[in-house]
Amino acid sequence: MSLADPRDVVAAKRDGRTLAPEEVEGFVLAYARDEVPDYLAAAFLMACYVRGLDAGETLALTRAMVASGRTIPLEGISRPKVDKHSTGGVADGVTLVFAPLAAALGLAVAKLSGRGLGHTGGTLDKLEAIPGLRTDLEPDAFERQVEEIGCAVAAPTADLVPADGKLYALRDATATVPAIPLIASSVMSKKLAVGTDLILLDVKAGSGAFMKTVEDAVELARASAALARDWGRACRVAVTDMSQPLGSAVGNALDVVETVALLRGQERGRLRDAALVFAVEAQVRLLDLDATEALARAERALDSGEALDAFRRMVQAQGGDPRVADDPMGVLPQAPVVRPILAPDEFSPSARTAVEAATPLGRWGGAEEIAKTVLALVDSDFITGETICVDGGRHLRY
Amino acid sequence: MSLADPRDVVAAKRDGRTLAPEEVEGFVLAYARDEVPDYLAAAFLMACYVRGLDAGETLALTRAMVASGRTIPLEGISRPKVDKHSTGGVADGVTLVFAPLAAALGLAVAKLSGRGLGHTGGTLDKLEAIPGLRTDLEPDAFERQVEEIGCAVAAPTADLVPADGKLYALRDATATVPAIPLIASSVMSKKLAVGTDLILLDVKAGSGAFMKTVEDAVELARASAALARDWGRACRVAVTDMSQPLGSAVGNALDVVETVALLRGQERGRLRDAALVFAVEAQVRLLDLDATEALARAERALDSGEALDAFRRMVQAQGGDPRVADDPMGVLPQAPVVRPILAPDEFSPSARTAVEAATPLGRWGGAEEIAKTVLALVDSDFITGETICVDGGRHLRY
Repeated sequence: MSLADPRDVVAAKRDGRTLAPEEVEGFVLAYARDEVPDYLAAAFLMACYVRGLDAGETLALTRAMVASGRTIPLEGISRPKVDKHSTGGVADGVTLVFAPLAAALGLAVAKLSGRGLGHTGGTLDKLEAIPGLRTDLEPDAFERQVEEIGCAVAAPTADLVPADGKLYALRDATATVPAIPLIASSVMSKKLAVGTDLILLDVKAGSGAFMKTVEDAVELARASAALARDWGRACRVAVTDMSQPLGSAVGNALDVVETVALLRGQERGRLRDAALVFAVEAQVRLLDLDATEALARAERALDSGEALDAFRRMVQAQGGDPRVADDPMGVLPQAPVVRPILAPDEFSPSARTAVEAATPLGRWGGAEEIAKTVLALVDSDFITGETICVDGGRHLRY
Repeated sequence: MSLADPRDVVAAKRDGRTLAPEEVEGFVLAYARDEVPDYLAAAFLMACYVRGLDAGETLALTRAMVASGRTIPLEGISRPKVDKHSTGGVADGVTLVFAPLAAALGLAVAKLSGRGLGHTGGTLDKLEAIPGLRTDLEPDAFERQVEEIGCAVAAPTADLVPADGKLYALRDATATVPAIPLIASSVMSKKLAVGTDLILLDVKAGSGAFMKTVEDAVELARASAALARDWGRACRVAVTDMSQPLGSAVGNALDVVETVALLRGQERGRLRDAALVFAVEAQVRLLDLDATEALARAERALDSGEALDAFRRMVQAQGGDPRVADDPMGVLPQAPVVRPILAPDEFSPSARTAVEAATPLGRWGGAEEIAKTVLALVDSDFITGETICVDGGRHLRY
C-alpha cells in the first residue's frame, strides 16, 4: 500500500474514523523525518485528542515512535532486567531508592530517566544535585555499569525515540498534552525501546499528578498495560496516590538527602512503602519469590546498608561524590533559602503559601485549585532556588 | 480583560467550551499579526472543526477577520449597492451576467471576486480570458468605475481581510476546510468588509459544489445569513442546485462566450434563470419594486442589449477588448482542443470521459463519484488547455 496523502490521514481522524496501522505509522515516521510540517502534525494531534485513538492505533503510534530511532536491547546484561517508571508527582523519589535496592537484590536496573515536567521533579535533576555526577552516559558505559553494579540512571540519548521528543514538544505547544492514548504512547515508547524483562509503571493519581482523578489514572494504566501486552512485554502498572507529596522533601538536593535516609533504613513512611511495593513485585516476577519472602529480603537490603552501598557505587561510577551516601548534607549544595512550611490537617494559608512560593518559577495554571489538596508544587528548575519541605498535612520533617 | 494565553484558548475549544468573543478575536488577530505560530493555529482550527463554533463565536471570528485589514466603505457610490456571491460551482457564470444586468437596472455592483478553487472556476479567471482585461484595480479606480458604469469586477487587494487568506491557506494544508462556521466566516468576512446595501449569497448544493448535500448547504446558508443579521447587514441567501453544471459551457473563454449570449438575450436556460432570480431580488429589496415588475425590467434589460452595453463598458474600463461583446469568438483565445462531449440522460462512458479529461489538471479525490451526476469538472487553470462543453444530461449546445 502506498503512503496516503498525510492530509487524508488527518481528515480521516478528524471525521472520527479508525486509522489503519500503516496510516498512523506512515504519518508519524514522515513527521519524524521532517516530511510532514508542524502545522499538519498539530492538526493531527488535535484530531487524535478530540476523537481518541483505539488500542490498535495507539500501538501503531507507539511502534512508529520506537521505530523512529535506535533501540537498546541490553543483551549483555546477565541479571534479570527491570525498568520502573513513574508518570510524575511531587516528592516522588521512588526511582532513586528502587534502583540501588533492586541492584542489591540481584536485579539489573538500566534506568533512562527524564527531567522535571511541569510541577513534577525529574530523577535526573535530583541526581545531578550530587557534585560531579554525570547522567549523559555513553550507551556502552551505561550497559557496562548496569552489568557491574546492577544499576545506572542516565539520560536517554537523542536517538532514542526521537519522534516522541518532537511530538511532545509540539503537543506542549498546541494544548494536546493530556490525552490518554498520547500519554500512554509517549510513556511506553521509551520503555519498549529498551530490552527489559519487566516494566513496572507507577501511574500517579491526584491533584499533584498529571492525572487528576483516579478514573483518568486507571484509564492511562490500562492503556499502558495494553500497549505492553500487545507488544509482547511483561508489564505491571500501579495507580498510586498523588493527592499529597509522596516523600517529605521537595527540592532536588533535599530529595537526595531523603533518598539516603531511606537507603539507610532510617526513614519510614509512604516513600519507603512505595519503593518496597515495586521491589517486591520485581522479585516475585523475576526471581520467583513469594511476596512475604520478597518483602523480607527488600527490608533487609535497606536495613543492612546493602542498598546504600549499591547507591554509593552507582554515584561513584557516574562521577559523583560517593561521600553523599554517608554525609549528604555535607556534600550537597545548600539552597540559599530553606523554608519550613507547616501544613496542618486542614487546608490553611500556610499550605497555600507553599504553592505560592513555588509557582512563580514556572507556568502553572490551576495553583489555587491544587493548593487545596496537594500542599506543595515545585518547578523542575528548582535546584538552586528556594527549597520547600512539606508533608501531606500531617507533620513537618525538616 | 488581558489577552489569554493562546494555548488556553485552544485548550478551551478542544474541551468543547464556548469561547468568549474576546478570546476568539484575540487569538485570530494575534495569528494575523504573526504572533501565534501556524502549528498552534492549526490545532485551534482542528478543535473548532471538530467541536464546532456557535453563532457568537462565528461572529467574533468574522469580526476579527474583517478587523485584520482595511475595509471598503464605498461611501462615494450614489446608486443602491448590491453584492452577489456564489460559493462556487461548475459552469456558474451568474456573476458575469448579474453585474452588468444590475448596472443596467440602476444598481451598483462593486464585485470583489475570487480565483477558481478546487474544481470550481473563478470569475476573475473567466474575465481575464478577455485580451487586455485587468482585474487588479486600485481602490479609487474601482470605486470610480462603479459610480460611472454601475459595475466593476476586481480582485481584492491583499490588505482586505488578510486573516482570511492566511487562515484559508492553513485550513487547506491541515484538512480543516469543510467546516460550516469556518466557511461561513470566510465567505461573509469578504462581503461584510465592503459597504453594500444588500448581500445576495448563492450557496450551491450538490455533487459539483463544496456542499454535497442540500442539508449542508442549508446549514451554511443559515450560518451566513445569521452572520449578516448579527452584523446588522441586509442579506439574502439562496441555496441552488449544483448537481449538474449551471451553464452549458465549461472553460474560461467559453464561459465568456456564454455570458455574451445571455446578455444578448439569446440564450435561455438555468443560467439565465439564476441571473434573473438575483436581479429580481435586488430590485425588490433596493428599488422597492414588486417581483413581477422587477422580472419584466430585468428581461427587458437583457433582450434590449442594455445589459450587454454595461458589460461592454465594464470590459473597456478595465482595459479589455470591448469587441468581445459583439464577436466573442473572434476576440477570445481558442483552446488548442475543443472537445464536444455528448451527455445522454443516463450516466454513460461519454460523460465519464468529460470528468477524466478534466481531472488530471488538478488534485481531485472523488471524480468517479461526482461523475455520476455532474458530468464535467474543470480545473481553474484551464484557460489555455482543453475546453469541455456539456449540458446537464440533456443535449449538447456546442
